[in-house]
Amino acid sequence: METYIRKINYYETDQMGCVHHSNYIRYFEEARTWFMEQAGYPYSRVEREGVISPVVSVSCQYKHPVHYGETVAIRTRLTGMTRVRFFFRYEVVDAETGQLRATGESEHCYLDRDGRIVSMQKVNPAFYECFLAAMDQE
Amino acid sequence: METYIRKINYYETDQMGCVHHSNYIRYFEEARTWFMEQAGYPYSRVEREGVISPVVSVSCQYKHPVHYGETVAIRTRLTGMTRVRFFFRYEVVDAETGQLRATGESEHCYLDRDGRIVSMQKVNPAFYECFLAAMDQE
Amino acid sequence: METYIRKINYYETDQMGCVHHSNYIRYFEEARTWFMEQAGYPYSRVEREGVISPVVSVSCQYKHPVHYGETVAIRTRLTGMTRVRFFFRYEVVDAETGQLRATGESEHCYLDRDGRIVSMQKVNPAFYECFLAAMDQE
Amino acid sequence: METYIRKINYYETDQMGCVHHSNYIRYFEEARTWFMEQAGYPYSRVEREGVISPVVSVSCQYKHPVHYGETVAIRTRLTGMTRVRFFFRYEVVDAETGQLRATGESEHCYLDRDGRIVSMQKVNPAFYECFLAAMDQE
Repeated sequence: METYIRKINYYETDQMGCVHHSNYIRYFEEARTWFMEQAGYPYSRVEREGVISPVVSVSCQYKHPVHYGETVAIRTRLTGMTRVRFFFRYEVVDAETGQLRATGESEHCYLDRDGRIVSMQKVNPAFYECFLAAMDQE
Repeated sequence: METYIRKINYYETDQMGCVHHSNYIRYFEEARTWFMEQAGYPYSRVEREGVISPVVSVSCQYKHPVHYGETVAIRTRLTGMTRVRFFFRYEVVDAETGQLRATGESEHCYLDRDGRIVSMQKVNPAFYECFLAAMDQE
Repeated sequence: METYIRKINYYETDQMGCVHHSNYIRYFEEARTWFMEQAGYPYSRVEREGVISPVVSVSCQYKHPVHYGETVAIRTRLTGMTRVRFFFRYEVVDAETGQLRATGESEHCYLDRDGRIVSMQKVNPAFYECFLAAMDQE
Repeated sequence: METYIRKINYYETDQMGCVHHSNYIRYFEEARTWFMEQAGYPYSRVEREGVISPVVSVSCQYKHPVHYGETVAIRTRLTGMTRVRFFFRYEVVDAETGQLRATGESEHCYLDRDGRIVSMQKVNPAFYECFLAAMDQE
């Protein structure tokens, strides 16, 4: 699968001279958005259809700093699904050298408009099928 | 009038070693929120009552950088109101030395749930009266 | 001149359901970075050469909200230069419809490593010439 | 141990109507900064003494959303130290009701000015002793 390409913005750096660690969590979200577009089901459509999909947990392991002027490539894989959860993994590498910068994971659920956890398979089978097909086969 | 006191966060710095300029716009919002609480009409109540109050314009003049570990005091004044607009001015000073760091202005309107500009005086006279009383008399 | 194209990120929205106003200041920075690359003098090179170029003032006028899932095009023009300052103007439009979303301005100076204002023409004539050539002719 | 108290800012919400998940990582940093001040060794002093202390990994588990207008209390504990690492745990609760909002962990190391991992015990024994004393005894 292709990867999401992303230039680093100046406002994402901190006084250590590299990207502030909190921004990787945002990069993961961008990569996930991009992944869902590639898979044919943009997240904006999910919300339009009345479901929201909050993050249940997230983590990031920082390997090497990323600097302003650099470009990262983020490989995003949908690694698992249950009836009410799905799981992503991310690898952030330097787009030029391929050197690993960070890895991460996130876990998500589906909530209806009243904030109750719902089975996406029941509520939105088209989305569920789309995600099943997009799931990583490794 | 008392001022809003605010410590600088590490994640607000950039690789120049001081606060990134975009964050002042956020400090202004914090100071405005604080101002409205002091005035007795928290912004969260405004939205609960069905109106939103978007920013129409904003500006900031940067005088001296602010650093991590420092604390700023933000003097906030409601400088004007029309039937459909209101105006704030901000002065950001070092809380210890009083040295001026930045000044700014913002302009706001009221929108109903359908996104139409409304007269707050008509829609919410209690809020309007509260703001009139809080307006700067200088 | 071509424009800088930018998709809106979910984390840039707020509870009004559209992009938080502070983020436009960051979009301006991205557009400026992109402009300097097009002009042949990336900002990362400026800093590498020992000068920083802080923002002296910034302003934004908000016309219509921008939403997650939308893409904006930012037209960026270098509108003026003095011995120690330069000025940009920005127009943010919807990339699909061309509808105006916001306009803005920013003003910048050059500081050496000791924080003193310097004439870029003296300190870095190559940069100065590059910017002169890139200045808007309208 | 006392907890770090923090009001939620409007700009930290997203279009789900609650705080964007990435901001919790920033709240953890604020709470850590506060913890170090309480312990008598502000992080700004660490950097002034020539060491930086980047985040090696971070994670967050989201339990209940936090909204604008609410205040959170963050209980921060230094849960472990090795020769070259230290570990924090965070609990974010509603300041009024005490309801749990999120938990998190972070892991940190020390780098000298050349980016090499160093033993804080050797490089800065005063800091090391301070942290040892502040370590959670549970």
